[in-house]
Order: sequence, then C-alpha cells, then structure tokens
Amino acid sequence: MNKANQKEQILELLKRVKDGQISPDDALLQMQTAPFEDLGYANIDYHRGLRQGTGEVIYGQNKTPVQIRNIISNMLDKGLNNIIITRISRQTADFLTKQKINLEYHNIAKIAIAERDSGTQRVGSVVIASGGTSDMPVCEEAAIAAEILGSHVIRLYDVGVAGLHRLLSQQNILAKARVIIAVAGMEGALASVIGGLVSCPVIAVPTSIGYGSNFNGLSALLAMLNSCANGISVVNIDNGFSAGYIANRINKMESI
Amino acid sequence: MNKANQKEQILELLKRVKDGQISPDDALLQMQTAPFEDLGYANIDYHRGLRQGTGEVIYGQNKTPVQIRNIISNMLDKGLNNIIITRISRQTADFLTKQKINLEYHNIAKIAIAERDSGTQRVGSVVIASGGTSDMPVCEEAAIAAEILGSHVIRLYDVGVAGLHRLLSQQNILAKARVIIAVAGMEGALASVIGGLVSCPVIAVPTSIGYGSNFNGLSALLAMLNSCANGISVVNIDNGFSAGYIANRINKMESI
Amino acid sequence: MNKANQKEQILELLKRVKDGQISPDDALLQMQTAPFEDLGYANIDYHRGLRQGTGEVIYGQNKTPVQIRNIISNMLDKGLNNIIITRISRQTADFLTKQKINLEYHNIAKIAIAERDSGTQRVGSVVIASGGTSDMPVCEEAAIAAEILGSHVIRLYDVGVAGLHRLLSQQNILAKARVIIAVAGMEGALASVIGGLVSCPVIAVPTSIGYGSNFNGLSALLAMLNSCANGISVVNIDNGFSAGYIANRINKMESI
Amino acid sequence: MNKANQKEQILELLKRVKDGQISPDDALLQMQTAPFEDLGYANIDYHRGLRQGTGEVIYGQNKTPVQIRNIISNMLDKGLNNIIITRISRQTADFLTKQKINLEYHNIAKIAIAERDSGTQRVGSVVIASGGTSDMPVCEEAAIAAEILGSHVIRLYDVGVAGLHRLLSQQNILAKARVIIAVAGMEGALASVIGGLVSCPVIAVPTSIGYGSNFNGLSALLAMLNSCANGISVVNIDNGFSAGYIANRINKMESI
Amino acid sequence: MNKANQKEQILELLKRVKDGQISPDDALLQMQTAPFEDLGYANIDYHRGLRQGTGEVIYGQNKTPVQIRNIISNMLDKGLNNIIITRISRQTADFLTKQKINLEYHNIAKIAIAERDSGTQRVGSVVIASGGTSDMPVCEEAAIAAEILGSHVIRLYDVGVAGLHRLLSQQNILAKARVIIAVAGMEGALASVIGGLVSCPVIAVPTSIGYGSNFNGLSALLAMLNSCANGISVVNIDNGFSAGYIANRINKMESI
Amino acid sequence: MNKANQKEQILELLKRVKDGQISPDDALLQMQTAPFEDLGYANIDYHRGLRQGTGEVIYGQNKTPVQIRNIISNMLDKGLNNIIITRISRQTADFLTKQKINLEYHNIAKIAIAERDSGTQRVGSVVIASGGTSDMPVCEEAAIAAEILGSHVIRLYDVGVAGLHRLLSQQNILAKARVIIAVAGMEGALASVIGGLVSCPVIAVPTSIGYGSNFNGLSALLAMLNSCANGISVVNIDNGFSAGYIANRINKMESI
Amino acid sequence: MNKANQKEQILELLKRVKDGQISPDDALLQMQTAPFEDLGYANIDYHRGLRQGTGEVIYGQNKTPVQIRNIISNMLDKGLNNIIITRISRQTADFLTKQKINLEYHNIAKIAIAERDSGTQRVGSVVIASGGTSDMPVCEEAAIAAEILGSHVIRLYDVGVAGLHRLLSQQNILAKARVIIAVAGMEGALASVIGGLVSCPVIAVPTSIGYGSNFNGLSALLAMLNSCANGISVVNIDNGFSAGYIANRINKMESI
Amino acid sequence: MNKANQKEQILELLKRVKDGQISPDDALLQMQTAPFEDLGYANIDYHRGLRQGTGEVIYGQNKTPVQIRNIISNMLDKGLNNIIITRISRQTADFLTKQKINLEYHNIAKIAIAERDSGTQRVGSVVIASGGTSDMPVCEEAAIAAEILGSHVIRLYDVGVAGLHRLLSQQNILAKARVIIAVAGMEGALASVIGGLVSCPVIAVPTSIGYGSNFNGLSALLAMLNSCANGISVVNIDNGFSAGYIANRINKMESI
Repeated sequence: MNKANQKEQILELLKRVKDGQISPDDALLQMQTAPFEDLGYANIDYHRGLRQGTGEVIYGQNKTPVQIRNIISNMLDKGLNNIIITRISRQTADFLTKQKINLEYHNIAKIAIAERDSGTQRVGSVVIASGGTSDMPVCEEAAIAAEILGSHVIRLYDVGVAGLHRLLSQQNILAKARVIIAVAGMEGALASVIGGLVSCPVIAVPTSIGYGSNFNGLSALLAMLNSCANGISVVNIDNGFSAGYIANRINKMESI
Repeated sequence: MNKANQKEQILELLKRVKDGQISPDDALLQMQTAPFEDLGYANIDYHRGLRQGTGEVIYGQNKTPVQIRNIISNMLDKGLNNIIITRISRQTADFLTKQKINLEYHNIAKIAIAERDSGTQRVGSVVIASGGTSDMPVCEEAAIAAEILGSHVIRLYDVGVAGLHRLLSQQNILAKARVIIAVAGMEGALASVIGGLVSCPVIAVPTSIGYGSNFNGLSALLAMLNSCANGISVVNIDNGFSAGYIANRINKMESI
Repeated sequence: MNKANQKEQILELLKRVKDGQISPDDALLQMQTAPFEDLGYANIDYHRGLRQGTGEVIYGQNKTPVQIRNIISNMLDKGLNNIIITRISRQTADFLTKQKINLEYHNIAKIAIAERDSGTQRVGSVVIASGGTSDMPVCEEAAIAAEILGSHVIRLYDVGVAGLHRLLSQQNILAKARVIIAVAGMEGALASVIGGLVSCPVIAVPTSIGYGSNFNGLSALLAMLNSCANGISVVNIDNGFSAGYIANRINKMESI
Repeated sequence: MNKANQKEQILELLKRVKDGQISPDDALLQMQTAPFEDLGYANIDYHRGLRQGTGEVIYGQNKTPVQIRNIISNMLDKGLNNIIITRISRQTADFLTKQKINLEYHNIAKIAIAERDSGTQRVGSVVIASGGTSDMPVCEEAAIAAEILGSHVIRLYDVGVAGLHRLLSQQNILAKARVIIAVAGMEGALASVIGGLVSCPVIAVPTSIGYGSNFNGLSALLAMLNSCANGISVVNIDNGFSAGYIANRINKMESI
Repeated sequence: MNKANQKEQILELLKRVKDGQISPDDALLQMQTAPFEDLGYANIDYHRGLRQGTGEVIYGQNKTPVQIRNIISNMLDKGLNNIIITRISRQTADFLTKQKINLEYHNIAKIAIAERDSGTQRVGSVVIASGGTSDMPVCEEAAIAAEILGSHVIRLYDVGVAGLHRLLSQQNILAKARVIIAVAGMEGALASVIGGLVSCPVIAVPTSIGYGSNFNGLSALLAMLNSCANGISVVNIDNGFSAGYIANRINKMESI
Repeated sequence: MNKANQKEQILELLKRVKDGQISPDDALLQMQTAPFEDLGYANIDYHRGLRQGTGEVIYGQNKTPVQIRNIISNMLDKGLNNIIITRISRQTADFLTKQKINLEYHNIAKIAIAERDSGTQRVGSVVIASGGTSDMPVCEEAAIAAEILGSHVIRLYDVGVAGLHRLLSQQNILAKARVIIAVAGMEGALASVIGGLVSCPVIAVPTSIGYGSNFNGLSALLAMLNSCANGISVVNIDNGFSAGYIANRINKMESI
Repeated sequence: MNKANQKEQILELLKRVKDGQISPDDALLQMQTAPFEDLGYANIDYHRGLRQGTGEVIYGQNKTPVQIRNIISNMLDKGLNNIIITRISRQTADFLTKQKINLEYHNIAKIAIAERDSGTQRVGSVVIASGGTSDMPVCEEAAIAAEILGSHVIRLYDVGVAGLHRLLSQQNILAKARVIIAVAGMEGALASVIGGLVSCPVIAVPTSIGYGSNFNGLSALLAMLNSCANGISVVNIDNGFSAGYIANRINKMESI
Repeated sequence: MNKANQKEQILELLKRVKDGQISPDDALLQMQTAPFEDLGYANIDYHRGLRQGTGEVIYGQNKTPVQIRNIISNMLDKGLNNIIITRISRQTADFLTKQKINLEYHNIAKIAIAERDSGTQRVGSVVIASGGTSDMPVCEEAAIAAEILGSHVIRLYDVGVAGLHRLLSQQNILAKARVIIAVAGMEGALASVIGGLVSCPVIAVPTSIGYGSNFNGLSALLAMLNSCANGISVVNIDNGFSAGYIANRINKMESI
C-alpha cells in the first residue's frame, strides 16, 4: 500500500480502538504482525514504510526474474509504488517490462524503480565523491538510491588523492554538503582526506577496485575503518545502495 | 544391502560364533572389515547403515557421472535403497535416469534419491527458518535431507531479523519444534535471535549469500560461532545437508 | 524465582485473565516484558528458565567481582538457585564466599555454582572425549556444566588419534552414549574419527591448544567444520560451556 | 583559541581584506596555513574548530604524560577549552591534575576533559544500546564524548538479542531517538535487530568482547558490515569515541 | 643430455684438468655455469640431473604450448629423456604429439612424459592413501611422478577417516611401506591417523576438495601442519607432484 | 600538453605576474587548479607532468574502450604525447587504432602508448630479473614502462633460486645495475638473494604465479616484505608498471 | 618398558599363539589395546616404541610439573628409558630433578631427557642450517631431538641468504648430508636455496622470528610451502622437534 | 675492517694475481668466501661493506647481550667501525658500555652505534614525514639510520591527512627532497597524498599504531601497497631501519 493508504488504515484501526471495537493491544498486535505476506519464498514486509519511512527494497541478486516479478506484483497490488530493485541485470529489467511492469532502469547503477513516483521532490545536498572512474557503478548505485528516496545529489567523480588539487578546488561544494559519501577503492585515502576538510557526516564506501593485495576491497575497507579523521562511518564493500540510503536519512534530518 | 539383509547377515555370523565355527574375534573382524567394496576410486562403506542408522551418502560434487552411476549400481546390487546423492546437477541426474536408475531429483536442493523408499514415515518436527529468499537452495538441501531420513519438516523462509515481526508472529511454530535449523547469510543474526526464543537445540547454517566483506560466508560463520545465545552449534558454510542430517538425528532421539 | 515460583505466578496471572481482571494480551505482554531487572549495567533475564528450561548463566569474564555479586544477589532474592558463573577466577570466587554467598567452585573448569541444588538427578549419558591432557580445562567446563544441568557425564580424556587404539578400545562406551562432546586442539581430527564410529549427535569443541600455525585454535576450528564425517556440529573455540549446555539439551530429549 | 576568539580573528582578517590591507587570497592562505603549532612531536590543529565545529581531540594512547601535558598547555594558551583526551589512564590523569590542569576524569570510559565548559547544553536524543555488561567501557566512551560535545544521551545497556524482550520493551525510547549507537561484541546481532526496528540513522560499534573465533572483534565487525537491515554504518572495533562524535554530528543536524 | 652423457662430459672435463689443459677452478666454474641455456623466456637447467639425480621438470601451467615445445626440443637436443611436464592440458599434449614429440599423457594426473625411458625399474614401496574419490587427480599426480622417477607405488584410495575400518583393514600394506603419501581435503585427518599407525616417514598433501570454510584447502593445510602425530611433513595444497618427488627420494635412500 | 608547451605556458604566466597583470597567488592558484579537465567520469590531471616529470597514466582496467578513447583524445588535444595505457586488452587497442589513434601495443605487457615520442633517449641501467617464465607478463609491464619513460632496460628472465648458478653467472650485470627489479611468485626468494648480492636499490614485485597456499601472491608478498637482506622495497602483487615507474625515477637520479 | 623388554614380551606372546594357548587374533588384539595406561588425565601409549621405533614423547607445554612427573614415573616403572620431554622450562626440570628423576636438561632447546640411554650410537648425517642467530632455540630443539634418537648432527648456523657466500662455502657439507633441516624465519628463503643445491630430502622449519608482516611465522611458512625448488616438505612454525624426529627417521632408512 | 683496509687487502690480492702468485679464480674465490667468521651462533659477514657499501648491521632483537658484545668485539678486532645495532634496549646498551664498548645510544629509536665515525658527512636530503606523534619511534629509527649512513635528514612529524594544511604548508620542503620516507599507521593515507605531490621516490613505512581493525599494522600496509599514486614502494610494518637504509642508498645515487 502507498503511504496515504497506510495512514488511513491505521487511523481507522485507531478509531475502532477508541470505539471499543478492538483493544489497543489487539490493535498494536494487528499493526505489528498483519501486513506482511507469505509468497512461500519471500515474506514481503509492508510495514517497513510505516516503521522506517521507506518501502521494502528488493535485493535483486540471487533472485530469479519470476521471483522478482511476483514480489513486485504483490507490492503493487497493495498500492505501493516507487519500489526499488537493486543489483538487477538489464535482461531481468527487460523481462519485467515485457510483463507490463512500469519500470525505470539505470544501466550503470543496475538499479530499477517500479512505478516511480514522479512527484518526489529532491531536497538538501548529498555530495558523492569518488577516487576514480572505475568506482562509478558503486557511486551511481548510491546516487540513484538517494535521488529516488528524495535527496538532491551532487557528483564529484575522479577526485582521488593522487591529484589532490582536483579535490581541493571543489572545497566550496564540500563545505555546503549536508552529508558526503566518499567512494574509493585501492587504499581508500579519499575518505580520510575529505573527513579532515568538512564538518558534516561522511559515509565511506570501500570498493573492490584495484588488484593484487587489494584482496577484493579489503585494503580500502580497513583503511576507512581506521581513518585518522573523525566523523567517518563505513558501509560494506561496494555497497553503494546502503550509503545512499543512510545519506538520505541524515540529509532529511529535521532540527531538534 | 538394506537394513533387513544386514541384520540377517550379522545374526548368521553370530550363530556361527556360538557353534564354534568362527571365533568371536574373527567375527568381529569380519564385521569391521568386510562390507565395503573397492571400486578402484571409491570404497563404498556398506556398514554405515549398521553403525550410524543411515546408508552411505554420495557427495556428488567433483565426481563424474560415470563414477556416480557405478557407485549407485554397486549399492543397489547389495540391496541398498533410499540412496542420497548431494550436490548433483540436473544433467548428471538426467544421465542417471537414462541409465535406468530410478531417481527422484530435487531441482533447488540439487539432491537426488535413488530407489526412494516410499514407505518412510516422517515423524517429529524439524523447523527450518531462513533469513532471506536467496538462502533457499541451502534450506531445501537441509529440508529434503531431513525428509528422506524420516523427519517431518516445517519451512519458515524469509523471516530475517530486518523485519523482526515476521519471525515473532511464528513463535507458536518455533515453540513446538524438537530441533530448529537456522539458515542465514550476511550477518547471520537469525541464529542468535532464534536461540534466545526457544529451548530446543538449534543448528546454525551460515550461507555464502551477501557481498563485499561477507567473504563467501565468513561473516555469518563467525557470527554464528560467537552467538551470545546458548544452545547453538554450527555446521560448515552452505552445508544444508549436514544440518538436515544432524537435525534428523536429534529429532529422532528417544527418551532416556 | 525458582521454577515452582514461576509456574505459580503464571497460573495466578492466567486466572486473572479468566476472571476478566486482565486481558489475555495484557497478560501476555506482562509475561514477556516484566521479569527482568535493570541493575544499570546488567539486565537480568528471569524468564529464561521459563523459555529455555534453565536459568540465566553469568558469563564471568570481563565483569568485576562486585558486578557479579550484585547479579547473584538479585537472582537469589527472586528465589532462583543453581546459578552458574563461567570463566570465574578463584580470587573472585573467594570474594563471593566472603560475601556470604554459598558457592561451589571448580578449579580446573573455572566454573562456580551459587546455591547449588543438591537434589538434581543426573540422567542419560554424555561422553566427553579429548585429544590430550592439555585440553582438560575446556573438557571440565563442558563436564561440570552438563552435570549441573542434570546430565550423567563420562570422561574419556587423552584419547587422541596419534594413538588410535586408545580410542578404539573404548568403543563400548562411545556406542552407548546419547551424545558425545569431542574436544581437541591442534588438527582436531578426533571429532572426525569419533563421528565415523557412532550414530549419536557429536558436538565438536576446538581448543586453542597447539603452537605455530595453530593460530589460537583456527586449525582445529576449520578442521571440525570441514569434517568428512556426518553428524558433527561445532561450537566456538574453547567454549566448553556451550558444548555442555547443548549436550544436556540433546541428552534430555524425550521420545516423539 | 575558543570559538568566540576564532570568529573575531577571522572577522578582523576579512576587514583587512575589505580595506585592501591584504588580498583575499592571502587571507585564505593565512586562514588555511597559520593556526597550527609545531611542538616538534605534535602539530596542533587550532583550526579544526573552525572547519569542523569541534576542537582538536587528543588521542592519549601511545603518548607520554609529558607530551599530553604540553599539548594541553599549548591549547589552553590559545584560549581553547573543553579539550577531550581519549584512552587516558587514571595515572596520567592524576599526573595532569598535579600539574595544575583542571581535569574531569571518567574512569570507565577512560576519557578526560580539560577545562570543561560547564555551560554546554545537551540537546536532542542519542540512544546508546549495548549487548552486554562487558561492552560498558566502549559504551561509556561513546556516551561521554557525545555529552561533552553537547548531545543528550540515553543509555540502554545489556539488551542483547539472547533475551529479545529486554530490547522490545524499550521500543518507545528507540522510536524517539534521533540517532542510535548500537554497541555489541560476539556476533554483533544487536545492530541488525535495532536497524530493523527504527527509522533513524544507526551507528554500529563492534567490540572485542568474546573469545575464541571472535578474533578480537572481527566477528562483530564483519556481522555489522554485512547487516541485512538498512540504515547502519560502522566504525572501528571498540571505537566508542568515533561513534559518539558522529552521533553528535547527526543529532545536531538542522532542517534543510 | 641423459645421465650417461652427463657423466662422460664431466669425466672428459676432469681428464683435461689432470692434463693441465684447464685449471680445476675453471673446470668447476664451467660445470656450475655452462649447462643451462637461455631461450629468452626460459633458462633450462641441464645440470639438475647432475646435482639432484633427476632432470629439469617443466611446470606446464602458465606456459604457452609453443614455449613448452621449445623447451622440450632443446632438452631432447641435449640428449635428455624421461622429461616430465606437469599441469599440462590434453589440448597442449595433443599439440606436442602433432609436433612429432614422443609423448605419454596421463589424463587424470595431467602429467606428460616426453621420450619416456621404458627401461626404468620401479623399486621399493611408496603407498599413496587418499581420503576420498575427489582427491584422485592429486593422488595420480603424485603416483605418476613417483613411478616415472623409479618408485613402486601402491594406491589406497578412498580410505578416509569417516569409515575408519577401510583404513584399518589395510594395515599390512601400511606397515610394509617405506614412505607414505597421505592425500586429503576437508579436515585432512587422514594424515594424523596414518601418522599414528606407522613408523615410516609420512608426506601429507592437503587438497582443495571441500566447500565453505574449507577456503580452498586451508583447513586441510592447517590441520596437517598441526598434526598431533609425529613423523609428518607437509607440501603445498594440491601439490601431488612435489609429494611424489620427495617420496621417491626417501624411498630410494640407501643404508648408512 | 607536452613538456615544452607546459613550460612556455608557465613562463608566460610568470611574466604576467611580473607585469602586475596577475598576483603571484592567483598565478599559483591557476597553476594548481586549472589544468585538469572534467569529462564527467574522469578528471584528467594535465599538471602531473609538471609536478612529477611524467604525464598522466591511464589505468585501463575497468574502463570502457569509449572512456579510454575520450581520455586520450582530450590529452592529445592539450598537446600531450607518449601517453601510457596499462592493463589494456588487444581488442581495446584495436578499437583505438580504428579510431585513428596512433598506438603502439605490447602484447605480453598489455601496455599501449599513444603518440609515442620516438625521440626519447634510454639511459642508465635498470635490470629486471625474474624467477620463472610464467612471471613474464609482469616483467614486461615493468620493462616497457621503464623504457617508455626513458630508461635502458636489461632483462634477466628465469633465474630463480632453484638453480642458483643461473643467477650467479650474471653477477657482472647485476653489479653494474643502477637499480634492479626482482620479480617472483611462489616463495619470492629471488628478491632476498639479489638483495644480498648488490649495493643498488632493489624493487621487489611479488607475482600471483603459483598455486595452493600461494593465495594469489600473498606468499611472495609477505616473503619480500620480510626479506632478511637490506635495501629492498616492495610494490603491489603483479604491479609491474609501478616497479618500472619507480625504477625509472631512481635510475635517473642526478648527483647531489 | 624398554625395547628389549618389549621384544621379549611379544616373543612370549607369539609362543603362546604357536602353542595354541591364545589365538593369533587375541594376540593381535592384546598387542594393540593393552599397553597404555590411564592416569585420569593422560593415556600413556607404551606401544609407540613397538609401532614407531621410538617411545612416547611428552609435550611439556600446558602440563603442570606434577602431571609431567607422574607420566615419567609411570613410564620408568614400565622399564622405558630415554624419555623425551619438549617445551619444558628450567624450573620444571629443576623440580623433576629434586623428585629424584635422573634428568638431562638442554637450556636453549628447552628439551629434557629422563634416564638417558648413554649407549645410543649416533649414525648417518643430519645437517641443520639456519638463517640467523635468533633461530637457534628452534635449531637446537631439532638437533637435540635427532641426537637423542640416534642421528649424527652437523650444525650450520647463521648462513642466511643475505650473505650467500656463507652458505656456498659449505657446499661440501651439504653435499654429504643424508637429510637437511632448513630453519629460517622472516622470508624463509634459505629452504629454497638449499633445495636447489642438494639431492637429499630437505625438511623446512619456519620460525616466528621477524616482525611486522611476519605475522608470527606466517611469511616463512607460506614461502616454504610455495618453494620453487623440489624436494622440500614443511613442518609447523617453530616445531624443531618434529623436524628432528622426521630427519632421524629418514637418516636411518635402510636400503631397499 | 674499515673501508680503507678492505681496499688495500683487495689491491694486494690483485697484485698477487698479476704476479702469478695466485690465479684470478682463486683470488675471486678467496674474496667471496674468506672474510666472514664463525662464532658458533653468528657468521659475521665482513665483506658486506665491500659488496654493499655499508658494514654488517646487527639486528638486536632476540639476541642476548653477551652475543651482541661478542659480535661487536669481533667486528672491532677486524678494524670495522660505525657499527649499527637496531632494536636494542637501554639495559643492553648499558651492559655494552660497561664492557668498555664505545657506544652512542638513541633512546626513542632504540638504535646504538659502536665506535661511531664522527667524520661522516651528511649529504643530500631525506625528508621523513609522519602521520602522528605516536609514529615517532619508527620515524627516529629511520632518521638515525639514514644519518649514520651519511644522509642529511629533515623531520616533518605529525602532518597526517586529518589536517591536510599541515602538510600542504610544507610543500617547499617536500619539493626539494631527493627521497621521502612516509611513516603512518591507521589508514596510512599519508603515503598516497605525498606520492601525489612530489616527483622523487617515496618509501612508505606502515606502523602498527592504531587499534581495532588496524590488526597490528595490516590496514596501513595494505593501503600503502595499494596506493593510487605512482612512485611509492613499501617496507615491512614498523621497519624504520629498512626505510632509512634504502633512502640513504637512493639519496646518494650519482648521475648516470
């Protein structure tokens, strides 16, 4: 169900509590346990929007096209929209489109959105800085995710520390960011350098870009976790979506 | 040989001991050493049924279709049935069927059973809970294994801790289980949460589902080994068969 | 509170539900949330006995003597007894005794029991086999834990695979076990050898005994997880308590 | 220098720019390069307050008492106050106090504050939840840091997932948090469970509490990085200070 | 050059020394530096036969078919025969045969021998025992290598510790061995069990067979290095050739 | 831009400073920030030649052929030549040639040079020694890189320590080297042996050649880092380019 | 019992078989199972001498002085002598001497021998070569062990590859060895260099000497396992005893 | 022997060759094999000065004070001076001084020099930059080593990337360096940032400073090996001496 529908349903439930038709506890229980659906292989969690302010996200990897279609269909039936599917191949996206699902596909990020809500405003400022061109798929996964969820995104790609002036010349943009996502492979030093320059929260994303003793992103991951700069927290290797999701949450914080 | 045949053979042997035809020690030696067969590349262990209550299981991975066929044929000649082959591809299964082997194949679990004994009763209650849809091949390997060996299995798939109410709403089922298999990749937290809710033994199976610093299941493996909840023991990454096998053993325990 | 007290409290609660004094849901809620106590640094879980059939266990490591004393006092006030404290030094045990706590201390296992219930019957058969003399502290932690929880324990120490006849001469004892705990450091082969000989569940405990590339128990841990024998599940390195706890659960299984 | 002093200095500089006494570029250069001081072994960064909204933090580990005293003295001379020293032993704190430094020492957190600014208001809501009593030093490091920096902190200690109702009964508090710090050792499942319940940012801190294959916090670190719940980012093992610092930043976010 | 040729060449050289035609030092230098040939990409070491009693072995992996052909041709030109090429695919072997090289190819072991010396006697007794059928490629690499180098080999395959009687029934063969190669993947326990039964040297070969936390043979490698049995030394994962080579050396030891 | 062009541009800039047309600071800023170009996905750093004496190097891996073409085109437009592209496949090289880019391609090294400056003199002496034929791609990457940058290179391939005389017979060449690159996989002992023989700087390159516990070059990497010989520093696994680049820098050092 | 006693006992047993007093199988069984003794914490294996040609070795680490004394006393009672105790401190050795045990103690090797058999002849030639002075404790553990077991030992210490001529000048000694033990820490290159020079079996012992990325001997261990020279097998880090034990076995091989 | 003595000795030898008193080969052999001395536990290499331009360095760790004294005495007897002892404690240094050895001790670096040659000129420019105050022992080990060997050293300590302006304000010094040593723990980003700013060779030294997932320097080591900047090579964790040694070699390079 979409957000409006959810609120109405809950309001109705609360009225029934007030009228004595249902006890508050029953109501609570109903709220907590009812709205997920068992498809045999997937328990869709329709309440996540309620609890977390965003709908269920479908992690596309390791799911068959048919499984993804069924999950989407079920969500659409409940009135949900703006459904995000991550790590989805173009082939699967094409299959879904042929199945009459209204789908927007982002090729580099490998993210799709079903029934995108075109009315979403993009607000605030999430800056995504990357060490090199090769980090772009991870960056775009973060960028598209943050944009769908309603954040304004500024991209500063290929500003790695080997040519420091590229980053230093963008200090104005960094200074105005509400939250920064620092994406880098190899030695992951970008996060530390940015962390030393700004006063907003920094989300660091290690990527598996590199070779040899990079060990699939381990070098960047350890470097970012051990940053000498304050204000940096880290997500999983190549996990652009998670960074975009968290950045959007922080970006939309309201005043105390 | 099947169980009935084995018992007869042993009884006969014991009678010969009583009649002085063979010394008890010789008999013991004969029991310990005789009933396995050297195929050159595989020593089939026909006594396992005797020692462990189940027949030899064929680990299909890294074996050629011809090797598997020969091992099965040999076992069938000895009167064995209900022979389990794990990690077997559909192609190999098709090859075996063409070779006139009576085979039941499970596509998701990648398990086959030759000459399935349709009379096996399924008893007790083994609950298999999983963190996500992607863990299904491992779950099904556990489920099919436990079912073939004679356990009643209940599947609770996609009840991961990110939406805790999905699991909490199934507490009745968990409470009635004799043994629970908790299957999860990523951070493997499902095992700990279930371990805190129940009083029966819990077998945890880490899966290689995830990406980045998951390191092919290492994150879930370490998490499950370090669970703060009591009553949890762990099997190898993705080793659904082992979990199903152990769960069946525990499920069938008799009273002291 | 002890088990009897707990049952009475719950019965009383259920009567109030029947009499309409409290709704079933409220009652449920009360049962789920009430019986743990906030000491500021420790939330004692008085319901674990209810949910899991055993009381709260105090993990002594990293707790100060005063913290441990306060947790015990609180539990005693609630009527609990037979309270297990693991990884506790003799000094701390002496401190507790001086504080008038009735404590039984096991020196090798480094386990203490406060207000031990002398009436507990020991039933069934848990066999604990170890690779070498050096594994004894881990073995004894498992043994004492299982005994306190009510299992009959048989010790087979120093039967490692380097002198296989030591183990093979004890096959009678192994064959009669309801569950076996295999404790070994170094290469951890004992678990596999026992696993191949018996038909009951085997709990493997890797120990950190060894040197060089043992890497603090990693070699035994990996070996046990990768055992070629079926029926083996594994607990954390040196975690004798966990093994004893699980073994007791399995040992006490009733018939279906 | 304190914040007021810094602003005055900068204003004066800007006026000189306006009056043509100094070029804007020179001014910029002066701002960027001047205000740090070379003590031979430590370059104190007096501009961090300007750039990041907080003063320089002294990482006490691996520094001698005399080095720490000199750094503090230098900062006090510049008019700075509310200076945080982390990982400082009671002995060193006593030494500093004897050296006439006005010091507040927190024993469990091992944090000291020199010339604490008693006027700092604590605002918003940072909730710190921990898995067990043993995690307390890390929790307190986070808590004290956030409080000094001006955040209101709520402590929920020992609410680990082995007794899930302890956490679930505190859902009201979790729901009102602006940011949550989840501190856990062993399998680190607490972060995932909290992440599934709330809609605010969650900072996860793995601790080195546990034994065996915990490998000094590796198990919790990997688990938290691989969390199946969205909205979680991670800091270094046992790095309570970093978590408190980041949480304070997020807590104080203003509306867009 | 073959062994006979080498000896003649050296004898001639020594005569020239005796006759004063060349100084002993020059002769030594000539012996040490002359007999290897620079092909640009490969320095063939024609003296290895002299120094080590066997010819140069060509490690086929990562070499192109043309490189291998050229190296062989060069060696044949020098009069060498019985040339071993390891890790060579059937395609490359077919290519070499088409190039008129007289080649014997072993399909499972992936070893080829160019100009095999059919007159080699096989002496002594090298026993190769393996844990399972899947270890056969590594076993055969060891077996063929030892046979080409002149050892008599006895194969005991699939005698893993999960069915211990398979191994125990072969104790006669083990007892008569001059050296034993123990090949096993998974937990590698076979090496320890054999090591406890015999009094001859045991060479352990870990294989990468297994899955999950096997980590490509790491579990077996660590287990074998940490064996509690004496008399075991270890070679690299899957390195059957090295084991066969060493076993042949030991097998051919003469009396003191 | 080529080096001549760069110097002219800078001279002109400095004249304008002298004439008061631009302040020195502005000039500095212009020098530091201007000459890189934002292609959206790649920030080309045109000043590297100025700062480091060589132009921007394009790391070809993980870049699409179109991205590489655009970066080259942009650099050519600025007057740059002798542009190095590493880790580039023959297919991509063919694509670039078809796009009218004047390209020299090295097949084994997988390096290409666009608009190669045929006038570059090769000076000094960089010796590249390798353990085996299989290390050749890494060696050639180092060799071609050093040659393009202007160093004279001597190749000593396949001189591994298993046949020490191959290396010892080349001591004359080693003794005359200004810098040596030691390339080896497996146990990486070549670096230590060379390090003990010479008095010039040695750059060690571990390669991923080997199998089993080589763990993709880890064994050679750790060995080289732990060398008992002085004067050895190490680059990343398989990173021939980096070794060639550093060796060229050292080779061209001028006297103090 | 000593070797003479053992042979007598067995002879007597065999006579009883011949006379029909006991069946051969019974005799076998008696031989296999009888001669070990249960001390509660240690199962002494009195048959090892029979099976393996040497007596039981006591691994002193992790055993208390009293445990060691009791084990020795028991073995002496059985007529055994020449009992080796490894990893034993001087304090424990002094304690044993005070307990009237006739003990020879080796300070550097930390090995003791109880009731040393002074008549043992030392035969053959085991050469022990080490990389540096710091490896001496491991070397001596190997040397003493081999000498007690009856091998003649030649020590070549501090001949590491950083000064290759130290090793090359000893080629005569290496060439005459029947077996060589190569002991080295750091990069462990000594094993490969020796392996390339000789034609006898080489046992490599990695030591934990070194710092930084040596990781307690991991660098030397991996290097030795990956040696490019043939004929090398490896034992555990710092395990000098095991190397000495194996070398003695090989040294004493008789002709086929 | 000192350098002058060595040259004379060699000259004399060469004259004897010319006069026919000794063959050139004998002379060579004498040069290669003679000048090292066997102390039983240490083979001092008196020719290193000849081969490598510096004398033997004594690695003090794991050597007893008496062993160090004897090695020094032997070297002094041969006429050597300026002998470096690394990783030596103040206690050992005091012991040596009491033994009449003329010793200069550096407390932070833990380096001593016996019979320091006060006439050594310091030339060129080696810049040592460090991330933080805690890295000082490693920095000083590098600095003292380079100074003793004859390099002029400039120290830039505590210029880590968290306050980038501290480093940027020192660009003049960096630009004039002939070689730079970058010392950093934690995430090791300093090496990459410096590498991007300069055109001289950079030697990176990871330190074990940090906590949590720093894993004793692993994070900085991997980061430095994976640097995105060109021109960086790496030495072992905390190995300041090696960095100083290499930097001195490069610093003293003469023109081609």
